[in-house]
Amino acid sequence: MSPFPGPLAALIAEFERLPGVGVKSAQRLAFHVLRMPVDDVRRFGQALTQARESLGFCRVCQNISEGETCEICSDPRRRADQICVVAEPKDIAAMERLNEYRGLYHVLHGLLSPLDGIGPENLKMRELIERLRDESMQEVVVATNPTVEGDTTALYLARLIKPLGVRVTRLAHGMPVGGELDYADTATLLSAFEYRREL
Amino acid sequence: MSPFPGPLAALIAEFERLPGVGVKSAQRLAFHVLRMPVDDVRRFGQALTQARESLGFCRVCQNISEGETCEICSDPRRRADQICVVAEPKDIAAMERLNEYRGLYHVLHGLLSPLDGIGPENLKMRELIERLRDESMQEVVVATNPTVEGDTTALYLARLIKPLGVRVTRLAHGMPVGGELDYADTATLLSAFEYRREL
Repeated sequence: MSPFPGPLAALIAEFERLPGVGVKSAQRLAFHVLRMPVDDVRRFGQALTQARESLGFCRVCQNISEGETCEICSDPRRRADQICVVAEPKDIAAMERLNEYRGLYHVLHGLLSPLDGIGPENLKMRELIERLRDESMQEVVVATNPTVEGDTTALYLARLIKPLGVRVTRLAHGMPVGGELDYADTATLLSAFEYRREL
Repeated sequence: MSPFPGPLAALIAEFERLPGVGVKSAQRLAFHVLRMPVDDVRRFGQALTQARESLGFCRVCQNISEGETCEICSDPRRRADQICVVAEPKDIAAMERLNEYRGLYHVLHGLLSPLDGIGPENLKMRELIERLRDESMQEVVVATNPTVEGDTTALYLARLIKPLGVRVTRLAHGMPVGGELDYADTATLLSAFEYRREL
């Protein structure tokens, strides 16, 4: 039985459901909310439902999007013959910070991980292959993390895509092996992009 | 400029405002919300505003309360001649787990900390002294953390309360010095309660 009044216990339980938030952190966050100005709490609650309700995933590249098609896919100034494949939407932000890549993206929403039971059917791979049927497609840049799962996914994609006559490259290992794409500094990531190699 | 669509950037900003949540954690939490079932997100949002709007602080003991007076203060089975003074509402939960203490509580909402500019006027001390005017009051048990701030607050309270003819005791140092009341195991906290000493 929770020693806290119902609404507080309910809020602690909601915080505990978030990834990486334990019992003590959930309590700390809930107590913080009780001391916040009531308008701030209302704005936080609205931000939650509004983000969830107004955002979906782009039907082309699977990135987070407010409309059916995301801003990058709808932008006529982007090169339509290059696709950069990333694991998560936040990795697109890392690539965009370079101000160097001008092509499109594809978000897999994960990486192959046989040990965790994550196979190609759990990722947005079929949707990627569909996009490559367009004959004008020149290159797929695989920008997965340089980890076991990232390497596995990159090699799998290369085997899948090359027979379609599309060039497959990968970010150079300029980043520390075992690191996370999302944490790389711009200079490192830029050189990794420039020295991307044929798979 | 945020690389994320408006509603997502807004949600990340809200998470970042919480204590102990950095940029990367805020992004991780916000992305998690986008993948949660929409009903779960609505329930989370409601839990936030409901907790904040339905809960206040007990006008007697300053504990979190749904009504004007909290459940403990309204319970006629509690001894009304003993008050246990704690720093935070969560410390009441720690004491209640003992199933040993049957008196009332008083929440200071902080501890004296001259370096941080927190003096008696920033805590619920005046409200505590008001309660001691009741002639039937026998004992004040100071249950502050065994830290510099907790010790300072306990000594300050002893000096303030003893002249009123009320016994002032303190939890024994059975807990590791520098530790947090809220993290102590029940056995340790129980012995600390049993060997509470006169101040």
